[in-house]
Amino acid sequence: MMTLRRLGEKRLIERIARGIRTGPGVVRGIGDDCAVLKSGNGRLLRLFACDMLVEGVHFTRKARPDQVGWKALAVNVSDVAAMGGLPKQAVISLGLPPSARVSFVDGLYRGLRRCAAAYGVDWVGGDTCRAPRVVMDVAILGEVEKGRVVYRTGAHPGDILLVTGRLGGSLRSGRHLRFRPRVREARALTARAKLHAMMDLSDGLGPDLLKMCEQSGVSAVLEPGRIPRHRGCSLEQALNDGEDFELLIAAAPRDAEALLRWAGRNLPCGLRRVGTVVPKKKGKLGALGSLEGFRHF
Amino acid sequence: MMTLRRLGEKRLIERIARGIRTGPGVVRGIGDDCAVLKSGNGRLLRLFACDMLVEGVHFTRKARPDQVGWKALAVNVSDVAAMGGLPKQAVISLGLPPSARVSFVDGLYRGLRRCAAAYGVDWVGGDTCRAPRVVMDVAILGEVEKGRVVYRTGAHPGDILLVTGRLGGSLRSGRHLRFRPRVREARALTARAKLHAMMDLSDGLGPDLLKMCEQSGVSAVLEPGRIPRHRGCSLEQALNDGEDFELLIAAAPRDAEALLRWAGRNLPCGLRRVGTVVPKKKGKLGALGSLEGFRHF
Repeated sequence: MMTLRRLGEKRLIERIARGIRTGPGVVRGIGDDCAVLKSGNGRLLRLFACDMLVEGVHFTRKARPDQVGWKALAVNVSDVAAMGGLPKQAVISLGLPPSARVSFVDGLYRGLRRCAAAYGVDWVGGDTCRAPRVVMDVAILGEVEKGRVVYRTGAHPGDILLVTGRLGGSLRSGRHLRFRPRVREARALTARAKLHAMMDLSDGLGPDLLKMCEQSGVSAVLEPGRIPRHRGCSLEQALNDGEDFELLIAAAPRDAEALLRWAGRNLPCGLRRVGTVVPKKKGKLGALGSLEGFRHF
Repeated sequence: MMTLRRLGEKRLIERIARGIRTGPGVVRGIGDDCAVLKSGNGRLLRLFACDMLVEGVHFTRKARPDQVGWKALAVNVSDVAAMGGLPKQAVISLGLPPSARVSFVDGLYRGLRRCAAAYGVDWVGGDTCRAPRVVMDVAILGEVEKGRVVYRTGAHPGDILLVTGRLGGSLRSGRHLRFRPRVREARALTARAKLHAMMDLSDGLGPDLLKMCEQSGVSAVLEPGRIPRHRGCSLEQALNDGEDFELLIAAAPRDAEALLRWAGRNLPCGLRRVGTVVPKKKGKLGALGSLEGFRHF
C-alpha cells in the first residue's frame, strides 16, 4: 500500500499538478510562490496564494497565540514578496477544537491583525469551524506591475545567487513565529534591477535552491563560506533548518553587483552573494553534500 | 475559563470582526458569503471567499474521496453563486496524515478536478502539509457585474422569501458530498429580476434565515406548509439539518411572482415561496419554534 510517507512531497505535487489546464485569465498556475492572474488593469497582474499552518507541525500550543496568528499571515505575505508584489487582501479559515480557550483565539486574531496592519493587508473574510487541532489557512491576493513580476523559473547559467538576511535556527530560536516578510526589500530590489528568479526560503536554502534549479533547468554551485548564518548555526543548519523566509535571488552578474553595492548602504537586513548558476548537470546541485531540508511527509 | 464551546460561533465571529477596517479596494468585507473587491475593470466586481472541510466534522474516512474533493470546491462555488457571480480561480490547501493512502489523495484531487471542470474554475495553486487528520481549505475568486451583485443584507419588509430545490436530510443521504452549487440558477434569476438579498443554505433554512434577518435588520415569517422538503424529511429536518446548499432569496412581491412563473417552466430544481419578510420584531424570527441548525462548536 502506497502512503504519502513513501511517496514524498515532491512526487505528490507532481501528481497533483499533472494534467491541470487553465483558462486565459491565468498567466502562471501551480508551481511558483503565487499564481499569477490577469487583472482588469492592463498594467498590473494579480497574485493569489495560500498557506496552511497546523498545530503540532508548524507550531505548538506552547507558542504565543499572537505569534502563531502573525506567522499564519506572514508566510503568505512572504509568498507575495517572493514574486515582487504588494499584498492586498486576505481571507482566513480557522479550525478550532471546541475546548480551545477564547483567550487563545483572541491572541491568534490579535497577531493576524497586527501583521495585516504592518503590511497593509485588508482582512476581508474567512471561515471558522470545528477541528481536532488548531489549523489556520490564509489565502492572499496581491498585485505586481507586469514588468516587475519575478518567477522562480528564470535563473540563467552565469547568474549570481543572492540571499537576504541570515539563515538557520529559525524553529529553535522562535524566529519562525515573528519573522518580517521581505516585502519592502523585494520591492526595492526589483525597482533597481531586473531579477531573473526569486523565491522565499521556507524549506531551507539547500532544498529551495534545488527547486529553483529544477524549475529553471539549471544547476548551481553554492559557496559555503559566503552563506550568511545566524549566530551559533552550522553550515548544515543554515542550509537545511528551513523557515527562514528570506529571499533567494538569481540575477545577471552586473545587476547582482549593483544590488550588492546598493544593499551595503541601504538594506538593513543585508544581501549576500552565496553562489552561481551553472548549466544543468544531471543529478547534481553543486559542490555541497547533503541537502535534506524539511520533510513534509 | 471561557472556551469556544461556551462562547458559540456567532459571538466568536462578532469578536473576530470587531474593529476590522478595510481600505479603498474593498467594497464589502467580512459578513457575507464572499468578500466583494473592486477589480481593475469598472464593470466588474471581484468575489473572494474560503471554506474549510475537516475530517470527522464535514466528512468521514468512509466517504468516497472523490466526493470529499468535489465538496471541498463545491461549497466555495456555492458561496460565489450566492452573490450572483461566476467562479473563476481557486487555490487549495491540503493537510494530510503521512499514513494517508496515495489512492485516497488521488481520489480527493479527482473530485476537485471534476468540480473545477464542471464549473469552469481554474485551479491555480495551493499548499500541501502534514496534519493529524485530513483537512482541505479552498479559497476561491469569482466575478460579478456591479448591477448584479446580491448581498444578504438587503431584505425589505414586504419581500417574498424564495428557496431553490428541496431541503433536509443532506448529511444522512450523502447529498452533501455530491450537491450541485446553484451557479446557473442564481445567474438566471439575477438576469431576470433585481433580488434584494440572497445567501446559500449551509446551516439550515432556520438558522440561515435568522442570519439574513439580523443582517438586514428585519424579521421573517416562514410558511411551514410551503417549505420544500426532500422525501422522508420532517419540517424540523428541512429547517435544521443544514448542508443543503440551496439558495435563499428575498425579492419584491412583483419580482418574486415573475421569478416563480419563469421557474415553473425553466428551473429544473424548482423555486418555492417559503415566507415573507416583516418589520423587525425583537427576539422573534416568526411563527416557527425551535431553529437550532448546525452547531459549529
